[in-house]
Amino acid sequence: MKKVLVTTVPFGNRNGLPLELMDAANIEWTINPLGRKLLEDELAEMATDYDAIIAGTEPITDKVMSNAPRLKLISRVGIGLDSVDLITARDRGIAVSYTPDAPAPAVAELTIGLMLSLLRSIHISNSELHRGEWHRHFGRRIPEITIGIIGAGRIGGRVLRRLAAFGSPRILVNDIKPREDIAPSLKIEWVDKETIYKQADLISLHTPLTRQTLDLISDRELEMMKSDALLINVARGGIINEMALERALIGGDIAGAAIDVFGVEPYVGGLSVLENCLLTAHMGSMSLDCRVRMEIEATEEVVRFLSGESLASPVPNTEYELQADFL
Amino acid sequence: MKKVLVTTVPFGNRNGLPLELMDAANIEWTINPLGRKLLEDELAEMATDYDAIIAGTEPITDKVMSNAPRLKLISRVGIGLDSVDLITARDRGIAVSYTPDAPAPAVAELTIGLMLSLLRSIHISNSELHRGEWHRHFGRRIPEITIGIIGAGRIGGRVLRRLAAFGSPRILVNDIKPREDIAPSLKIEWVDKETIYKQADLISLHTPLTRQTLDLISDRELEMMKSDALLINVARGGIINEMALERALIGGDIAGAAIDVFGVEPYVGGLSVLENCLLTAHMGSMSLDCRVRMEIEATEEVVRFLSGESLASPVPNTEYELQADFL
Repeated sequence: MKKVLVTTVPFGNRNGLPLELMDAANIEWTINPLGRKLLEDELAEMATDYDAIIAGTEPITDKVMSNAPRLKLISRVGIGLDSVDLITARDRGIAVSYTPDAPAPAVAELTIGLMLSLLRSIHISNSELHRGEWHRHFGRRIPEITIGIIGAGRIGGRVLRRLAAFGSPRILVNDIKPREDIAPSLKIEWVDKETIYKQADLISLHTPLTRQTLDLISDRELEMMKSDALLINVARGGIINEMALERALIGGDIAGAAIDVFGVEPYVGGLSVLENCLLTAHMGSMSLDCRVRMEIEATEEVVRFLSGESLASPVPNTEYELQADFL
Repeated sequence: MKKVLVTTVPFGNRNGLPLELMDAANIEWTINPLGRKLLEDELAEMATDYDAIIAGTEPITDKVMSNAPRLKLISRVGIGLDSVDLITARDRGIAVSYTPDAPAPAVAELTIGLMLSLLRSIHISNSELHRGEWHRHFGRRIPEITIGIIGAGRIGGRVLRRLAAFGSPRILVNDIKPREDIAPSLKIEWVDKETIYKQADLISLHTPLTRQTLDLISDRELEMMKSDALLINVARGGIINEMALERALIGGDIAGAAIDVFGVEPYVGGLSVLENCLLTAHMGSMSLDCRVRMEIEATEEVVRFLSGESLASPVPNTEYELQADFL
């Protein structure tokens, strides 16, 4: 009997279909008993006896894989691959699949929500009123500001198309590959990152975590930004240097930030004491419909693979090349 | 020399043009020295010697007007007229003007921000992370839910048009006058209020405060709603009965609410201790551009009127009729 370890949690508890799919395929499954993101050593110890892992963002390293002699598939629930050592996986003959499209609409909606919270100080007024203070904060509207988007792929593109309903802000976009058709009703200026740092009132990050984007935003970049700039990260924690962000928010280099992703999760750190830092617990993909779709797609990959069929969404070569460059 | 009392605060401090306009017209102006919303007695005492008031939402009653023998114009910064006794003003020969269009885009944007916060538990996760707790909340996306809009005028209509960018939710709308062209790209069902209470996952109120809408949402209506329903009020405090809302949020009749307007402001009350109640300090119109536009328009009315010109935006007869019905 084939055995699958599900490390991402929660899993299958709002919609049981992923578990039913495995039952129907006669697959024995185990859900991460710790109920939280696993550390490398915990996963290495836990993974010894499984044919496939349905994985979250926990580190799947050489150490983990060398401890898992039966492992033949890593099926990522989600899009980011920074947690998986792809080159080692390939060397060991372990296939890797992912669900790149499923989370995008949910992440894009969360991004717009964080933008509006930052622009109108919703989170700050809420904290104040919950401790009995009343201040009417001035805010800014989307069409009145310059918005900078770094990374215009599946998620950045969806953010742009949703912004179009709010009028016509000035929009600066940076991406490795400019795509002229990304949001036809918006006038987009394709610029370098420095132009975004210097000119944008609100900057939102939508890149993967790679060597190029690790610590992309650190002291130097934050100092370039306007003192009333707002910064959003719903991508990956390592893209912003958290200590530098803390310094910038305390020192007034920028006015506020909204951070959904962290270098180490669950997050514990100095951003928690800053009222001008809106914090959410890696909830970008956590809409019921997207999460269920991700879980089902990742499970279907496992069922296909363990039945000898080919994968529907194997990680493409470009991702391996990025990491070969990275390591 | 003509004298103007500005009761709404803050005023003229982000853009000095309203004050300059009055200076240029040789008008002497005074800004509310208490720096907060005035009570009836305070305004009655303060208003004795002015030709016009540039007004916020403080009560302008018979008592106030009888104490202000020189008063000839009330120029409201904003759209709501529930704070002004229009019938008495007409009987006393006091004109009333307002700025009905200026705040609408800012209120609509805040509404979308509150919707996304409620749907994704942004405010709850933020509070949790600021006290060191990490929970990944499931949320819902706009296209997955049924949205109910009560009041489809200047603001409700703008909310609907912005929603269109997020996909195709089921949209239920109630208004005295259904308007088929309000958001051409959305499929709207015009329904009675009870259908909205029973079927909507998220209900947003965009009506004026009148006899018909005072306590519109109270125990009976809240009990009709789904237990996972979310409720938004950016219109006027009196439209939702605050005690009933408190009971419903504690008792689980509904799942959450976002409240920007209150029966008495600054707000002090039991909603402040409920984490599932997102609270903001009457900030609907508080975007820099809309606020400045409102202040300039209201000031231009004063300058016009005191120079003997006719008003550009006098309150229309329908508003007087609504209040004649109300009183």
